[in-house]
Amino acid sequence: MNKALQLFLGAAFLAMPAFAQQVEPLDATVVEKIRQEGLKNSQVMDIAFYLTDVNGPRLSGSTGLAKANQWTKDKLTSWGLKNAVIEPWGTFGKGWDVEKSYLALTKPYYQPMIGSPKAWTPSTNGPVKAQVMLVKATKEEDLAQYAGKLKGKVVMMEVTNPIKTTFTADASRYTDEQLQKMAEPVQPTAGRTPMTDEQRAAMQARRALVAKMSEMFLQEGAVAMFSGRSGSHGTYFTSNGASYAMDAKPVLPEFEMAQEDLARMSRLLAAGIPVEVELESKTRFLTDDQQGYNVIAEIPGTDKKLKSEIVMLGGHIDSWHAATGATDNAAGVAVMMEAVRIIKALNLQPKRTIRIALWGGEEQGLHGSRGYAKKHLGDPATMKLLPEHAKIAAYYNLDNGSGKIRGIYTQGNEAVAPLFTEWLKPFHDLGATTVTNRNTGGTDHLSFDGLGLPGFQFIQDGLEYNTRTHHTNMDTYDRLQAEDLKQASVIVASFVYQSATRKDKLPRKALPAVKPQS
Amino acid sequence: MNKALQLFLGAAFLAMPAFAQQVEPLDATVVEKIRQEGLKNSQVMDIAFYLTDVNGPRLSGSTGLAKANQWTKDKLTSWGLKNAVIEPWGTFGKGWDVEKSYLALTKPYYQPMIGSPKAWTPSTNGPVKAQVMLVKATKEEDLAQYAGKLKGKVVMMEVTNPIKTTFTADASRYTDEQLQKMAEPVQPTAGRTPMTDEQRAAMQARRALVAKMSEMFLQEGAVAMFSGRSGSHGTYFTSNGASYAMDAKPVLPEFEMAQEDLARMSRLLAAGIPVEVELESKTRFLTDDQQGYNVIAEIPGTDKKLKSEIVMLGGHIDSWHAATGATDNAAGVAVMMEAVRIIKALNLQPKRTIRIALWGGEEQGLHGSRGYAKKHLGDPATMKLLPEHAKIAAYYNLDNGSGKIRGIYTQGNEAVAPLFTEWLKPFHDLGATTVTNRNTGGTDHLSFDGLGLPGFQFIQDGLEYNTRTHHTNMDTYDRLQAEDLKQASVIVASFVYQSATRKDKLPRKALPAVKPQS
Repeated sequence: MNKALQLFLGAAFLAMPAFAQQVEPLDATVVEKIRQEGLKNSQVMDIAFYLTDVNGPRLSGSTGLAKANQWTKDKLTSWGLKNAVIEPWGTFGKGWDVEKSYLALTKPYYQPMIGSPKAWTPSTNGPVKAQVMLVKATKEEDLAQYAGKLKGKVVMMEVTNPIKTTFTADASRYTDEQLQKMAEPVQPTAGRTPMTDEQRAAMQARRALVAKMSEMFLQEGAVAMFSGRSGSHGTYFTSNGASYAMDAKPVLPEFEMAQEDLARMSRLLAAGIPVEVELESKTRFLTDDQQGYNVIAEIPGTDKKLKSEIVMLGGHIDSWHAATGATDNAAGVAVMMEAVRIIKALNLQPKRTIRIALWGGEEQGLHGSRGYAKKHLGDPATMKLLPEHAKIAAYYNLDNGSGKIRGIYTQGNEAVAPLFTEWLKPFHDLGATTVTNRNTGGTDHLSFDGLGLPGFQFIQDGLEYNTRTHHTNMDTYDRLQAEDLKQASVIVASFVYQSATRKDKLPRKALPAVKPQS
Repeated sequence: MNKALQLFLGAAFLAMPAFAQQVEPLDATVVEKIRQEGLKNSQVMDIAFYLTDVNGPRLSGSTGLAKANQWTKDKLTSWGLKNAVIEPWGTFGKGWDVEKSYLALTKPYYQPMIGSPKAWTPSTNGPVKAQVMLVKATKEEDLAQYAGKLKGKVVMMEVTNPIKTTFTADASRYTDEQLQKMAEPVQPTAGRTPMTDEQRAAMQARRALVAKMSEMFLQEGAVAMFSGRSGSHGTYFTSNGASYAMDAKPVLPEFEMAQEDLARMSRLLAAGIPVEVELESKTRFLTDDQQGYNVIAEIPGTDKKLKSEIVMLGGHIDSWHAATGATDNAAGVAVMMEAVRIIKALNLQPKRTIRIALWGGEEQGLHGSRGYAKKHLGDPATMKLLPEHAKIAAYYNLDNGSGKIRGIYTQGNEAVAPLFTEWLKPFHDLGATTVTNRNTGGTDHLSFDGLGLPGFQFIQDGLEYNTRTHHTNMDTYDRLQAEDLKQASVIVASFVYQSATRKDKLPRKALPAVKPQS
């Protein structure tokens, strides 16, 4: 090696002190124990069964979420975790439960239809029988023609995206090639292409039109709205039809429906054939407690000096309402709970404290983890940090469905890559091989990452997540893959235990700059 | 070539006189006209729209089927077809309509469920709220434990076949290799492996158990039954839950349901967690007219001598009730209607009479075509033939969904193979290439084939037929592939026109032997 190169490398190492960290392997004996417990005595499917089938939907603010919070807190306590608490993260708004949902076509003939109320929409005035009116509008002016014509009607927009028969499978796993590509170095900021100004303007115009329409339909005395986005074969995607804020604007009752039912009505109405429906939505708003909650519990650290430091793991426990949120995200919750169960069951003695967090309000904007971070760690708006910020060794998140772990995203934290590469080695035989410095977004590790803390989300096989389960009425227990969830539990338990036992906290990226107030 | 072989071949040719028939090509000018009309001015999707979206389900004996019969008769007449008639084929039994269907889980939490009443099941006693009871029984003795426990309950069997996530696409087309394999010579009798005695005994035992259970549940005062066979993601398969015979045994109201909903209740009950449901089924029996009907219409032949001979084409117009029977078999009806529309629109002058038949009662056992054959052509039990038997030049059927035509089955009629091979040539570019001497079953060409008449069904791409549409609640207009149906219309029109214009009727197989009475 020549002198110049040596000097260069030395300088490079100085600039990246984290690379100099010791890359310790996982303790093979512990890994073997974790594998035995997690693969042979797994409770992950039982946990998932209670969260989904037994508990039901867990929409933020709903009775179902409150029940699930209580159940998980009790369960974690029963395993010997300490300091279990259902902790408020701040103000959420109104809770909302569905008490009845009925939808049928009655003209030109009778047929039951598949759908359910959009979240936070009000009840119909009991059972309603009404004609459906098709509204075609691409700009506000198009709405004028409907003035005076909507009273007593159910309103829907024309369906302009017919279902396409696909010749590719709904479910898939990552191929070796895809994983290799994912591991290739890219700029840490790479990810979604940002919107162009034009796209942003178009989106804002669409939103403004939708808002205008909602207002008009309500004023004109329509009785309900039908809507839908995509999905097929009885699968539909769900979301909210109104704000959960206490001062939310009033809206009409609105149903999200199977595209087959919606498209049929659209075709009939476009052909001038009258459509009549029967429907009933009975929903209930819960306003007594407007707070949102996270469930927190700990396995206290055993090292006098290190036990004040914290390795966190978590995933959001809230879900959408039209199914039981199995892959989004009972799967993640069950895996994280199973991971701490394994550590407790084996009586492993982590030096640092392990803290599990089951977040609320994720679906409405990572509210639970953001509220938690702000309360305990610091404010990302000002980068004013709280003392506990210094104590967080790592945060691991799981929220991409039921697929097994294929690797981990470092979120551009290149210094942890050698550690993770080493820690994945005992799990290569289970398909977990890949460390990518890329970012992944959309879930609760961002609340840590945004404060410069080492927060990570695992790479998971997609399975049917994007096609069938994520936010759909078909996100049920049936979609959960037992072997995948067992594998994930074992890997998470190992990563968490290692993070709680190694000499140093995990390396951090530089603190993010304070963002200018917009 | 040696003398012995020559003699053998000579004898073989004598035994198969049809091979000596002239193999005429299709008239290129006519084919081009048919392609232009069928691919550019197609009405096949409009016809299908009326049969499905506008008309609705067409269960045998239902109001929907009666409407569809009238509409198709009128439509065929409007195109200039003659002798259009809604012709009774014999006694069917009771008609049945659904007037309301509502299903929801109410405990342990509220969630609407996907399902509908099984055909020919009675109404519930208005809206019912009831507990669900899981019955586990593999033999009659297992039922004793439920005596006295079913009053007021909804009863369901344990779901023992959990949904498996598949990594293959729902929809597919035949590959060249598959088509080649299909064209390879096999014994004409090859097809499904017949049941072993053991399998038959097991099936009979299962049926006997189901019958015994139905009887017991009714006697014990259960209020309804839940059932389901397969399907996933909101797609479920439908059938009948009772006989349509006038003297059918009484049964309970019964719902066929999405496997996700059924499996959830099964898991909850198996874990000892009470399940309560809300349901309502309102069905109506139609007993005024117990006859079944076919729709028949003709394009009269123009050749003085040949016009008494008949080329038939058809498909069944009845469907199951939980969707609009788009691929089973509005697709086949629309293609056959479009084929005669093309021939009329082009003012082609077929020498023989072309007769379209839209069969009723196919789903309950090819009743419509069998009744028609018995009335007009002969009795397959005695092989006593009627005069019109001699006049049938060919029958073409379409009933395998929305997939384009990839070829045709000769049903072991090897003498037509050279003709069909020639007639497919102008459609190789559209993917129709294959003639197979194999049999295909399950639909109305068998009513002709069983009388030794040349009755054929086309080979069609399967698309989603077996996975998503055949007899499911998702057999809707959305599943229809316009380009496939246009292609099929053009090929059928050409085959029918050629069959109606060539010198001879199509070659026939030997008359079947009279089957011994069982």
